[in-house]
Amino acid sequence: MGVQAGLPKVVKRRVNALKNLQVKCAHIEAKFYEEVHELERKYAALYQPLFDKRSDIVKAAYEPTDEECEWKADEEEELTVSKQDEMKEKAKLEEEKKDEEKEDPKGIPEFWLTVFKNVDLLSDMLQEHDEPILKHLQDIKVKFSDPGQPMSFTLEFHFEPNDFFTNTVLTKTYKMRSEPDESDPFSFDGPEIMSCTGCTIDWTKGKNVTLKTIKKKQKHKGRGTVRTVTKTVPNDSFFNFFTPPEVPENGELDEDSEAVLAADFEIGHFIRERIVPRAVLYFTGEAIEDDDDDYDEEGEEADDEEGEEEADEENDADYDPKV
Amino acid sequence: MGVQAGLPKVVKRRVNALKNLQVKCAHIEAKFYEEVHELERKYAALYQPLFDKRSDIVKAAYEPTDEECEWKADEEEELTVSKQDEMKEKAKLEEEKKDEEKEDPKGIPEFWLTVFKNVDLLSDMLQEHDEPILKHLQDIKVKFSDPGQPMSFTLEFHFEPNDFFTNTVLTKTYKMRSEPDESDPFSFDGPEIMSCTGCTIDWTKGKNVTLKTIKKKQKHKGRGTVRTVTKTVPNDSFFNFFTPPEVPENGELDEDSEAVLAADFEIGHFIRERIVPRAVLYFTGEAIEDDDDDYDEEGEEADDEEGEEEADEENDADYDPKV
Repeated sequence: MGVQAGLPKVVKRRVNALKNLQVKCAHIEAKFYEEVHELERKYAALYQPLFDKRSDIVKAAYEPTDEECEWKADEEEELTVSKQDEMKEKAKLEEEKKDEEKEDPKGIPEFWLTVFKNVDLLSDMLQEHDEPILKHLQDIKVKFSDPGQPMSFTLEFHFEPNDFFTNTVLTKTYKMRSEPDESDPFSFDGPEIMSCTGCTIDWTKGKNVTLKTIKKKQKHKGRGTVRTVTKTVPNDSFFNFFTPPEVPENGELDEDSEAVLAADFEIGHFIRERIVPRAVLYFTGEAIEDDDDDYDEEGEEADDEEGEEEADEENDADYDPKV
Repeated sequence: MGVQAGLPKVVKRRVNALKNLQVKCAHIEAKFYEEVHELERKYAALYQPLFDKRSDIVKAAYEPTDEECEWKADEEEELTVSKQDEMKEKAKLEEEKKDEEKEDPKGIPEFWLTVFKNVDLLSDMLQEHDEPILKHLQDIKVKFSDPGQPMSFTLEFHFEPNDFFTNTVLTKTYKMRSEPDESDPFSFDGPEIMSCTGCTIDWTKGKNVTLKTIKKKQKHKGRGTVRTVTKTVPNDSFFNFFTPPEVPENGELDEDSEAVLAADFEIGHFIRERIVPRAVLYFTGEAIEDDDDDYDEEGEEADDEEGEEEADEENDADYDPKV
């Protein structure tokens, strides 16, 4: 409790007055966060047309113009190329173009699957059998709860028609705590994810990658004969993301489920705050190095320099600086 | 660069279109942060009366009423005390009260010094010779730049009259970058401290703790006689905080100064965001454990559970579950 244990009673009394002021601050702070959330809603509407255009380009619903595709880095690269290299490059491009004209990829194939594979937090969830499904993922949208509703956000995973399930959208909703807890007003530090719910996936028969069948041999205790039992058990899959552990009425979860939920909240937060707003930078990989900069040190450890003595060099040539 | 090296040209073209959309997003995001900053200004004005009251209580300019000093935890503690303990406690309190009446501490003595000592980031800066000075620190205020001005904030350290320097306020100003850099639009991630300036401390003669004199013995190279030279050199002190390293015109700092500045920015940010808003919780120590929760994992490392097979127990008693 710091160095103020055993304060005189008159001082302790005043400290309690400061704590009461602090509770008032916490309530004002809660209003601040509500207003920030309204700003986030307002700006979500401003970003949305750009994200919609992104989605149209990715799924080949829109072909961008040459002007829309101009990118400075490429131009700079062209300027530094010598004439000879320029001719080699041109010949190579014409070759590639012939090959590509046979392929003619539409939009940006496997855009979101590539984003997932590039980001450790997401690729950790990805199994091999998930990849063919995620090729059909066309967009991830963030939707906010309406004003006046309890604070929450929903991640919408939009899929093109596919062989695996009939849903066009899979959803994951995160509920947030947006006010201080009266019994613990000082633990509030801005809106925080408290729980989440998924959705039901209408799997096509035989395509449910979140289940697998295993065969177990069993020996009859009396007779000694062996039978083979086929069981359906859960299978690791990204798509378990849509059936997160439920928090029971008494509020207590086993340790494993707690860990799964904690990771889940982190992922939900990361997809909302980083992936959706900056998806192309995760596609190219540009954003990945930058994430080290996101490491915001709010804590108390700082490598503080001791500040060594800077003794001036004596310029008096007659004197030997060291005795 | 992720798994998309060697994209077909037609796809690369569309990726560039997405990058151009991303630049537009970055500019919208900059406006978002400007509006958040306006909200911060608005709320700073709402917190200020509470912080002013805190300051008045700390420096004994205001004595809070009994009602203002009621604090739930104390009440709860009283309820659980037995009659016998209650009488012992009462006798002890009367003893303490007699002692205290002789002392009669005003306000909350050494409030801010105690905050500094409780917080590693700040106590690392603190030297023994700084403590008598910091006993005179009565308040730390945060002031924001005006709308339309380049974004900055100033920390004002308010001191009561003392023997060490004549200033009533020492200031440290932090300048922020609030817009994307045109040459690197994707590195912008919200306002960031870019530089800082301190102030001149008008030290009373002989009281400047940022300097110390040392004696050096030197031997005359020719004659062999020894002389004693007295030099003034920098001394470690918290008060060096007000003379941070200057970034030279060519923008390059030596490694040591870069480290000092990086730590300085962290400290300035921490004082603004955590210490000033929640000072009493650092005084009592309550906020210190909580700071672990501030550890916001925006990065990509997650201990993802492998998700072990949950095989159901076979209930068929005839069969031995293990073969």
